[in-house]
Amino acid sequence: MSTKQLVDRILSQIPDASFRVVFWDGESRRYGRGAEEFVLRLDDEAVCRGLLGNLSVRFGDAYVAGAVRVEGSLDRFLRLMFLCRPETFRLTLGEKARLAALRWRRVDALEQARRNVAVHYDLGNDFFKLWLDKEMMYSCAYFRTPDEDIDTAQERKLRHLAEKLRLREGVRLLDIGCGWGGFLLHAATRYGVHGLGITLSAEQEAEARARIGAHGLGDRVAVARRDYRELGETAGFDAVVSVGMFEHVGRSNYREYFRSTARLLREGGIGVLHTIGRQTPGPPNAWITKHIFPGAYFPSLAETVGPLTASGLEVTDVEVWRLHYAWTLDRWLEAYEANIDRVRAMYGEPFTRLWRLYLAGCAASFRYGDYCVWQIQFTKGATDAIPPTREYLYPSEP
Amino acid sequence: MSTKQLVDRILSQIPDASFRVVFWDGESRRYGRGAEEFVLRLDDEAVCRGLLGNLSVRFGDAYVAGAVRVEGSLDRFLRLMFLCRPETFRLTLGEKARLAALRWRRVDALEQARRNVAVHYDLGNDFFKLWLDKEMMYSCAYFRTPDEDIDTAQERKLRHLAEKLRLREGVRLLDIGCGWGGFLLHAATRYGVHGLGITLSAEQEAEARARIGAHGLGDRVAVARRDYRELGETAGFDAVVSVGMFEHVGRSNYREYFRSTARLLREGGIGVLHTIGRQTPGPPNAWITKHIFPGAYFPSLAETVGPLTASGLEVTDVEVWRLHYAWTLDRWLEAYEANIDRVRAMYGEPFTRLWRLYLAGCAASFRYGDYCVWQIQFTKGATDAIPPTREYLYPSEP
Repeated sequence: MSTKQLVDRILSQIPDASFRVVFWDGESRRYGRGAEEFVLRLDDEAVCRGLLGNLSVRFGDAYVAGAVRVEGSLDRFLRLMFLCRPETFRLTLGEKARLAALRWRRVDALEQARRNVAVHYDLGNDFFKLWLDKEMMYSCAYFRTPDEDIDTAQERKLRHLAEKLRLREGVRLLDIGCGWGGFLLHAATRYGVHGLGITLSAEQEAEARARIGAHGLGDRVAVARRDYRELGETAGFDAVVSVGMFEHVGRSNYREYFRSTARLLREGGIGVLHTIGRQTPGPPNAWITKHIFPGAYFPSLAETVGPLTASGLEVTDVEVWRLHYAWTLDRWLEAYEANIDRVRAMYGEPFTRLWRLYLAGCAASFRYGDYCVWQIQFTKGATDAIPPTREYLYPSEP
Repeated sequence: MSTKQLVDRILSQIPDASFRVVFWDGESRRYGRGAEEFVLRLDDEAVCRGLLGNLSVRFGDAYVAGAVRVEGSLDRFLRLMFLCRPETFRLTLGEKARLAALRWRRVDALEQARRNVAVHYDLGNDFFKLWLDKEMMYSCAYFRTPDEDIDTAQERKLRHLAEKLRLREGVRLLDIGCGWGGFLLHAATRYGVHGLGITLSAEQEAEARARIGAHGLGDRVAVARRDYRELGETAGFDAVVSVGMFEHVGRSNYREYFRSTARLLREGGIGVLHTIGRQTPGPPNAWITKHIFPGAYFPSLAETVGPLTASGLEVTDVEVWRLHYAWTLDRWLEAYEANIDRVRAMYGEPFTRLWRLYLAGCAASFRYGDYCVWQIQFTKGATDAIPPTREYLYPSEP
């Protein structure tokens, strides 16, 4: 049985999808019915053999290398990766044995791709400015309607967080993983807080400092390049927020993370944890952890609130966002594609393809997978600061 | 060292409380400073020795038997049970040995009390009508402000649940543990649903049937005396709700409970679980489980959402209520005390004291302990029926 026959056997069993495949020998085959959603170009037989062995890791590399190309909707293609259950395919024992054997095959074309993408860890602020919103929030926005623009939705997220934290004039706020300082600036200019932000990135620290200076907030807002475990002496915050950082903490450090948070908060203080998560526990996509977020873990709710409450903190609200992150990533991808020539000039074609796949793949994780955002509000002991109902989070908007 | 000396040693170490104790020999002693919150009358030395050995179980029996009496605020007295940490008291080794020895002592006066309270399992609807709201909701109400009346707050809870379930004309609703049918009636009259309620109580079933008939809803709403595990053939509900029943499911049955729920819901259907819970896992108060809710367990959030998501359901929102149940229980206790003469005539003095302690003790659990209500909204698979933000739950009220 040839590689092509095996690929064909599998593709023809995918339910509810309509697409065309152009094989390395030029042959074109149609799968499914209805309007064609995309064309999949498989230009390299050796790479395809490799893909059959380990789709979840090797597909990303193959896409980056250009050995697999998708014309039309990348989102509809990625949807297949989430909806297909290869274990339900009807395959002969011989076909299964063939697939198992391919699992251990080395694919040289992909080794090359891996080397090409190492560059992305050195990305600078200029790259993110090309496609993030004006406040440079590199986390999920909060949309009132799916068609809202990214600036409006990010601003709503900032206000939503501030209200959950009950920010007021003079409140002492800690932002763990403050990024480029977007939330600190919002909290200081709109609510008059005294803020400290910490980050491990020198680029983010420098940019956040510059923005704080430009707003004349240097006397009330500070940024430090520190780890959350290094703030032992700085306790007594009224509010502690962390947005899009917990993903990098690592499951084995959750206890320590929440114990630190509990220590940093004053009695009666309020915290909000905003993190990507999953409905059911499981390892993240191997390609994403290899190329984009080494060491990342996206926790289930039980994995998060267990150690949180064990640290003496109390859960007071859990908001769950799913499509919000798909919409956020759609906007980012749109802006990214609008600037694709500049990205290509800065980092070359393989990186350009890598980042596109990353943005589109994450959007698909939220749209078709079990990924979501957990926004957990908690307190250290009882407080009267949180109103009886959650109506306070939803003032009438025009 | 006498019993009185030991009691005095312990009482004098309780921080932040102001009260007076009248001992069995008539002596009166003052503890703490500030306005006197209550007077504790200890009329029986033997019972007090028993209390020293096992406060959490024996206090309830002693109160019911009238051997311990509280004049003034029962709530402020119960607060001590939550805030005191006897393990932090400074006691001599001799005192500790004395306490340990008392643990195994038999207290005859309390055995008698235990026999007196068995009556409460035979309580009828007339008893609950004395002190519940007009819709007879025997679960936490939802207050917009702490001083709202119980009818308004229970009605808000019903509407809140209905909105979370996205009820509409023709929706097929299952209510697991439907009580006296309050939510079914609300859903049928306000939203036009087709409803099935199940309960294990013959008294509740009869009352719910009568109310459905009185509303002329017999063609659309049914009640059955069935266990949730007995609905195998009745799948395909658009919405499944359970309010104040999960407490009785038992931790070892959570998997089966959620698998049943998942089976009963159609793909894309919505559920809401409303249950008493605790911030951190732990056994419930021994006296409550013995006399009021045998077999009850109040789960932590992690204990609940773990098996929920493992059953293929997805968490879409978690609302956390704490003081709402204290306020609800305050209203119930108020109405109960207003009808205390009728209760005494129906069931006698020990039962009267038992039910007062139960209502006041539960209020204290929410006010001073780590008890709360988890209101968990979930879906079976993805659905567009839930709006992007939770604004839909908070329409502008007059």
